[in-house]
Amino acid sequence: MAGNSFGQMFKITTFGESHGEAVGVIVDGVTPGVEIDTSYIQKQMDRRKPGQSSVTTSRKEYDIVSILSGTFEGRTTGTPVFMVLFNQDMRPSAYDSIKDSFRPGHADFTYLKKYGIRDHRGSGRASGRETAARVAAGALARKMLERRGVSVVAYTTEVGGIQCKDFVESEIENNVVRACDPQVVGAMVDKIESLARVGDSCGGVVECRIRGVMPGLGEPVFDKLDAELAKAMLSIGAVKGIEFGAGFKASQMLGSEHNDPMDSSGYLSNNSGGIIGGISTGQEIIFRVAVKPTSSISVPQKTIDVEGKEQIIRTEGRHDPCICPRIVPVVEAMACIVLEDHFKRQAALHQ
Amino acid sequence: MAGNSFGQMFKITTFGESHGEAVGVIVDGVTPGVEIDTSYIQKQMDRRKPGQSSVTTSRKEYDIVSILSGTFEGRTTGTPVFMVLFNQDMRPSAYDSIKDSFRPGHADFTYLKKYGIRDHRGSGRASGRETAARVAAGALARKMLERRGVSVVAYTTEVGGIQCKDFVESEIENNVVRACDPQVVGAMVDKIESLARVGDSCGGVVECRIRGVMPGLGEPVFDKLDAELAKAMLSIGAVKGIEFGAGFKASQMLGSEHNDPMDSSGYLSNNSGGIIGGISTGQEIIFRVAVKPTSSISVPQKTIDVEGKEQIIRTEGRHDPCICPRIVPVVEAMACIVLEDHFKRQAALHQ
Amino acid sequence: MAGNSFGQMFKITTFGESHGEAVGVIVDGVTPGVEIDTSYIQKQMDRRKPGQSSVTTSRKEYDIVSILSGTFEGRTTGTPVFMVLFNQDMRPSAYDSIKDSFRPGHADFTYLKKYGIRDHRGSGRASGRETAARVAAGALARKMLERRGVSVVAYTTEVGGIQCKDFVESEIENNVVRACDPQVVGAMVDKIESLARVGDSCGGVVECRIRGVMPGLGEPVFDKLDAELAKAMLSIGAVKGIEFGAGFKASQMLGSEHNDPMDSSGYLSNNSGGIIGGISTGQEIIFRVAVKPTSSISVPQKTIDVEGKEQIIRTEGRHDPCICPRIVPVVEAMACIVLEDHFKRQAALHQ
Amino acid sequence: MAGNSFGQMFKITTFGESHGEAVGVIVDGVTPGVEIDTSYIQKQMDRRKPGQSSVTTSRKEYDIVSILSGTFEGRTTGTPVFMVLFNQDMRPSAYDSIKDSFRPGHADFTYLKKYGIRDHRGSGRASGRETAARVAAGALARKMLERRGVSVVAYTTEVGGIQCKDFVESEIENNVVRACDPQVVGAMVDKIESLARVGDSCGGVVECRIRGVMPGLGEPVFDKLDAELAKAMLSIGAVKGIEFGAGFKASQMLGSEHNDPMDSSGYLSNNSGGIIGGISTGQEIIFRVAVKPTSSISVPQKTIDVEGKEQIIRTEGRHDPCICPRIVPVVEAMACIVLEDHFKRQAALHQ
Repeated sequence: MAGNSFGQMFKITTFGESHGEAVGVIVDGVTPGVEIDTSYIQKQMDRRKPGQSSVTTSRKEYDIVSILSGTFEGRTTGTPVFMVLFNQDMRPSAYDSIKDSFRPGHADFTYLKKYGIRDHRGSGRASGRETAARVAAGALARKMLERRGVSVVAYTTEVGGIQCKDFVESEIENNVVRACDPQVVGAMVDKIESLARVGDSCGGVVECRIRGVMPGLGEPVFDKLDAELAKAMLSIGAVKGIEFGAGFKASQMLGSEHNDPMDSSGYLSNNSGGIIGGISTGQEIIFRVAVKPTSSISVPQKTIDVEGKEQIIRTEGRHDPCICPRIVPVVEAMACIVLEDHFKRQAALHQ
Repeated sequence: MAGNSFGQMFKITTFGESHGEAVGVIVDGVTPGVEIDTSYIQKQMDRRKPGQSSVTTSRKEYDIVSILSGTFEGRTTGTPVFMVLFNQDMRPSAYDSIKDSFRPGHADFTYLKKYGIRDHRGSGRASGRETAARVAAGALARKMLERRGVSVVAYTTEVGGIQCKDFVESEIENNVVRACDPQVVGAMVDKIESLARVGDSCGGVVECRIRGVMPGLGEPVFDKLDAELAKAMLSIGAVKGIEFGAGFKASQMLGSEHNDPMDSSGYLSNNSGGIIGGISTGQEIIFRVAVKPTSSISVPQKTIDVEGKEQIIRTEGRHDPCICPRIVPVVEAMACIVLEDHFKRQAALHQ
Repeated sequence: MAGNSFGQMFKITTFGESHGEAVGVIVDGVTPGVEIDTSYIQKQMDRRKPGQSSVTTSRKEYDIVSILSGTFEGRTTGTPVFMVLFNQDMRPSAYDSIKDSFRPGHADFTYLKKYGIRDHRGSGRASGRETAARVAAGALARKMLERRGVSVVAYTTEVGGIQCKDFVESEIENNVVRACDPQVVGAMVDKIESLARVGDSCGGVVECRIRGVMPGLGEPVFDKLDAELAKAMLSIGAVKGIEFGAGFKASQMLGSEHNDPMDSSGYLSNNSGGIIGGISTGQEIIFRVAVKPTSSISVPQKTIDVEGKEQIIRTEGRHDPCICPRIVPVVEAMACIVLEDHFKRQAALHQ
Repeated sequence: MAGNSFGQMFKITTFGESHGEAVGVIVDGVTPGVEIDTSYIQKQMDRRKPGQSSVTTSRKEYDIVSILSGTFEGRTTGTPVFMVLFNQDMRPSAYDSIKDSFRPGHADFTYLKKYGIRDHRGSGRASGRETAARVAAGALARKMLERRGVSVVAYTTEVGGIQCKDFVESEIENNVVRACDPQVVGAMVDKIESLARVGDSCGGVVECRIRGVMPGLGEPVFDKLDAELAKAMLSIGAVKGIEFGAGFKASQMLGSEHNDPMDSSGYLSNNSGGIIGGISTGQEIIFRVAVKPTSSISVPQKTIDVEGKEQIIRTEGRHDPCICPRIVPVVEAMACIVLEDHFKRQAALHQ
């Protein structure tokens, strides 16, 4: 298949450009008979939308989601659920000045090389805007997972070099960074705001924990649960790496340290991150993703135009100085979609 | 599809257990008319096979590959290429003593939970033996890539905490660790051998560089080139993380540092790892994977049996004290498969 | 994948119910840089829309198509093209009287059994309305095929037992039945109108000819060109059979009659229908589909309600007494989609 | 995916040429824990193998199937089942005289045009030999279906214009034509034998009945149960058409005749062939396929060679004068695979 679908039995297909008329998603394979309403979806959209706080872009998109098919009288019917968000507050003319230039760190150059054609308004499909459709689909998957007793929570653990020391889950949604340690939120906000003032940006790390998955979920050998989560996460534009459990630290451990021993109560440690051989162990599934600093900055940078002429560019516009807070719901959404798909595949196997 | 296939237009489907009769692969979508012979494939098999050196398992499998379809008079015909390796030197009785126990770090427990049935001989599909089929398919993909001027080289950069400082490509295949820095090979070998003596194991890091890919390869939005490479790598049993370019370090960088500027000669740095927006930039593609220490160790470990009874286990047998040297050709194989598939998809897009 | 997508490299995914808010389609894998405008798509929509003539339903749906993504300044960009039709002239209350009954020949019963839930308004996804999305996608495929010199034309060859004797291609779009023989159009119209008056319906046969396909298109062994055309056609609700070339007559022929001989000018006959071994011969591809009589009739019929109670039903509403004229553009659309997908796959093979 | 796989959740991938070393299949998605032995598979192989009787080819292939993975101690494990048949009694030199000629009705010409390369020995992947792998996979699917109470039986209903009038299921496997009417078997055998004597061949019709499927199986809108059965059947080389239930006769019926009424005992007729809206009704599923006369005949025919030079060809060798008896198990096998896949998909939907 072409590259705009994800999943086998719970499958999403998205469309839409940042400065086009709409973004949206068709979700196929939805369990019939599940209660769902727009407000449940909208709640997740609001966590991703721009303009939430001082540390996000000041663009105002209301990200109002509409469900146009696949439900009847408040329940899913089993037919494709189509959800759409019409774009608002578009200012394509803001991009006129850079229409012939390649913005460093952006996909302008690579898209032009791939497609041979350029839509210079915003970032088209490479825009973070595209993830709105994923969050809508992810909310639907989350609803399905709730019925199975599965929860998915992501949060920021590092921003601009400032790391969380503590994990206070209840505080995550109470701070604008969505950090898991309230002690460092102030420093994180200061860091982000100071970078915003000088037109620069910073990266960070987002962690995700999945609970309630029974042992036995995942499809060897290529569609391992961690392999598909890795694909899902790396498909998010700003993500440059992922690690499960002990992750890169595992490369410095001995087998006798890294192996998770068991006793009658179950596993005694979780270096595996809850997945062994691509299949869930029944423990918490835990992984971290590396988030690069936002590419759009107004600091002057060297670049070239479409004719190869050198120039200095400053990417104006209203951009996120750190994308971590808004990537959190996207990470959760993609994790939900992977899980829901694997639950369905497991059911198929044992049918 | 079920989980034993990988790729869309260049697609591999594998079968076989470590202690069954054979492992093998069907490769579908092979370009017709390409010269290929068994020796070309066998060369890659030999890089992965056990018993190569003092730092690998002493098991002797000759990994002799046979091509049973898809070629005629030394050329591919465009029909499925089937390659098989019949298993040898199997000692399933070696596993009798642990047939009811779960080996820590192994997929015994998760496979049983998933399938409800257990083949206790070796690790079945979760065995590293399964990757032999991938290497055979990868060699075929590599042949196709050579025609396009693309090269793929992987190597060990870290073992048991010892890191390569230098990159001397010509030395990689000249040392048993497949490390890129000849200065540290001695220390690495000592480390691995000393762990082997005490029945323990260690992890490491393997890096991969891909050269010769033109700008424009990769499929937004879900099948990004890095997303598919991530899935491919995490589908290798021992891999617990991946990062592209600056990777996790990107999370501590500013946008003004991380963005790769351009001048008329092209990109001036490669923090992106050669992929932006999921599409190749034309630079070297570079990524690193975290390799966990081999799970099979003879150090005593706490575990339980299938009835939940606690016990101490020592996994005897002939195992690799560090899997990095043998994972190198597997990483290359999977990278080749991802690339070849994307070349074909790019051709389809522009048809 | 779930069942609402079709195609591999040129892939469509549809959504929408007959009495929901909209029907639409995401087309993925569109060649970038192709000129396209809404009027080109709309022209095909108008051929399928209801209310065209005395022999179609009197429902008025204007079937106005909008393109919301995937194009820029009149050209495709290579990103997903999303097309939507908002529903109009819905009268869901017309279905209140039969909301608990199963209409004979309809999918009411089977959908309820499959999904365990019922949307009684119209026929939901089983409605012919769903094919509007296919026609929009098919128009896009047709545009791509035009660039390759491929044309696809379907037409009615039989209605209510009245068969075309002659093939006058230029007359097809000049008569309301889309029949290929102007001599029998009058009789066909009389037949349909007389059935409409008594609330009954009739079936027919639609034939399709594809020209300009070079020899060599099609994917052995399962995705044969005729196999995929067969799936595409049988996926149209009213179609109950398909045959290629000599078709069912081949079963009564000798090998010496059926084999198409060749001389230096090419094939001397076309009993194969232009496809041998699943691959195009370069001749005209020709197939016929059996169209069942419209299920919705107002003639009284025995049925049961959801509780199994027997009753007599008359399906009121505005229905097509013969669906052939409106199925013609759907047959063409699906054929175009299959072909475009196979052109892309052929390009991938030889890349 | 490329064209050598079939199915989503129960998926088969085949390889092998008629005059290569082996044909085989990987079956992925097999339910774990099901008792299976080679003799169960072999029984189906024997029904398809050549040399069974006076009406089939005199070639002797023993079609001995081996299972090399995916089972343990007589049960499936849930991992891929690999089955292989090594080729025997190959006489590739028999094809030397026609190595540069195109045999009328054969895929020689189309394969060369598609792939640009020719394996002239036998028919390669276009050979009926390829279906042996399907029958092996189908036997596995049949085993799964037995557990669900589903049976699949196919049989010849017409040969060389001679039609069965009666349906005596118990006689099907008792005659060499696998005809359902013992009264006409003698005439059919005479017809086939007399054609064989003059080196000609004839076609026929094969019908298939599926029983025990509950209402509700099938995936709207593109993966309708009849659409996938149609694809499966047309993927068999000699099949040129398919019809369900009343089939092509439906095109001459009125809605009031064709619609299947219901009363409290269920449906009162089965014009639909047991599938409405692409979903099973719970009735017997019934379809017929048109089988073309075998292309390989020794009657002289006009053809050309690879350089376009005209010539007269006589395809010598040992060929089936009528392929119907041997296509029967292939039709059953493909039907079993489609059904098993849909059972798994239905389970996924409702998970």
